Amino acid sequence: MELFYIPQLKEIGCEMEISGAEARHIARVLRHKAGDDVLGTNGAGEEFRLVLKKVAQERVVAQVLEKRPGSREPNHRLVLAQAVLKGDKLAEVVESVTELGVDEVIPFICERVVGRLTESKYRRLEGVAVSAMKSSTRTVLPRIGRLVDFDGLREVFSDFDQVIVAYEEERRTALAKVLNRNVNKIMLVIGPEGGFTPEEIEKMSDAGAVCCSLGPRRLRSETAAIAAVSIVLNLLGDLG
Amino acid sequence: MELFYIPQLKEIGCEMEISGAEARHIARVLRHKAGDDVLGTNGAGEEFRLVLKKVAQERVVAQVLEKRPGSREPNHRLVLAQAVLKGDKLAEVVESVTELGVDEVIPFICERVVGRLTESKYRRLEGVAVSAMKSSTRTVLPRIGRLVDFDGLREVFSDFDQVIVAYEEERRTALAKVLNRNVNKIMLVIGPEGGFTPEEIEKMSDAGAVCCSLGPRRLRSETAAIAAVSIVLNLLGDLG
Repeated sequence: MELFYIPQLKEIGCEMEISGAEARHIARVLRHKAGDDVLGTNGAGEEFRLVLKKVAQERVVAQVLEKRPGSREPNHRLVLAQAVLKGDKLAEVVESVTELGVDEVIPFICERVVGRLTESKYRRLEGVAVSAMKSSTRTVLPRIGRLVDFDGLREVFSDFDQVIVAYEEERRTALAKVLNRNVNKIMLVIGPEGGFTPEEIEKMSDAGAVCCSLGPRRLRSETAAIAAVSIVLNLLGDLG
Repeated sequence: MELFYIPQLKEIGCEMEISGAEARHIARVLRHKAGDDVLGTNGAGEEFRLVLKKVAQERVVAQVLEKRPGSREPNHRLVLAQAVLKGDKLAEVVESVTELGVDEVIPFICERVVGRLTESKYRRLEGVAVSAMKSSTRTVLPRIGRLVDFDGLREVFSDFDQVIVAYEEERRTALAKVLNRNVNKIMLVIGPEGGFTPEEIEKMSDAGAVCCSLGPRRLRSETAAIAAVSIVLNLLGDLG
């Protein structure tokens, strides 16, 4: 199943022009012809069946035949707040957690962050999210939030039903124990390689977050992110 | 907490010579002196407290002061059978699942495998497992099994209490539903990028494996491996 990302997709009957990478993929890679049916998503939760009217190398015209809500999305909105990581690791996290089903990734900086999120890296994260949405056949394109600092991160806590922070020094309270199954919008906060400082943990707790353990073994930040997202979505009935 | 990997570690009172990378790490990187206490593991489940007797650049002599069973290992033995993947992806999987707590990774080939596992790549997997064991402060070094073909894979199924295959075409049966919580030794089988063929699934089912879904979104093989290991260890009470 191939799913094209066409942000301008709207109503049944509409005709639209597709250009750029998606047009090249339709025309050159998959060698579709006029009259073929394809599937597209607007990245806003909807799936569309389209018929191709004209197919040229750089320009495809398609008409919407059918529109339906995407059927492969989680029932809960999970947002990952991820501390900035060195090198390409943030892109690895975005790729995996997009496939798994997160709604948004918010990169943040805090005291022990050592990597940097440049504008070009940020753009790359957006591209990775688009590719991963398509390859996983999702119909929601996860938003990549603008970089926030630690205070900015705490300010958005109130938008969520529950905020869970994975904390290495928390030994007793397992993720499975703190997760409230009766909520809709959850934020999971994963710290940098060096972890959070005790002061940061205190400030997040004061702002309403609950801390949990991911077990006694020390996980790299990227492993912790993918594991925690998998476990939360599983416990909520949204994965496996 | 720093944990050194010293395979020859055995009994209290023993004196031993440490050479190679671990000696350089003790002497040059961490600048330990004679008289310092350090922690080591033999990778076979035990943790040791050692006192350094002599510290030179390439050669360290240590004596075992204390020996105890590692306290950070899962209570279940989870083995990941992972189809060979292209490029460096198998190493990425080994790194993450070692941190999470698997007991062994068995690479296998089947019809739709496109990557190759050369001898140098295999050696690299062993090195990655050692690094990840140390960084995650584990005391069990996961074995990297020799490459097996599809028939060889099915032959080891009988060594396990339960064998679970993640199968893309399986839509109904969730991993959480098939997992038997009362078993000790479990094998999780993750296929290649292109998935298993229906014939392979039938043969594995005939050999006693159960198939399960990891949800409706299409996951890359490496994401599926890390997610499935996280979910199984979580459901068994061994992670988060």
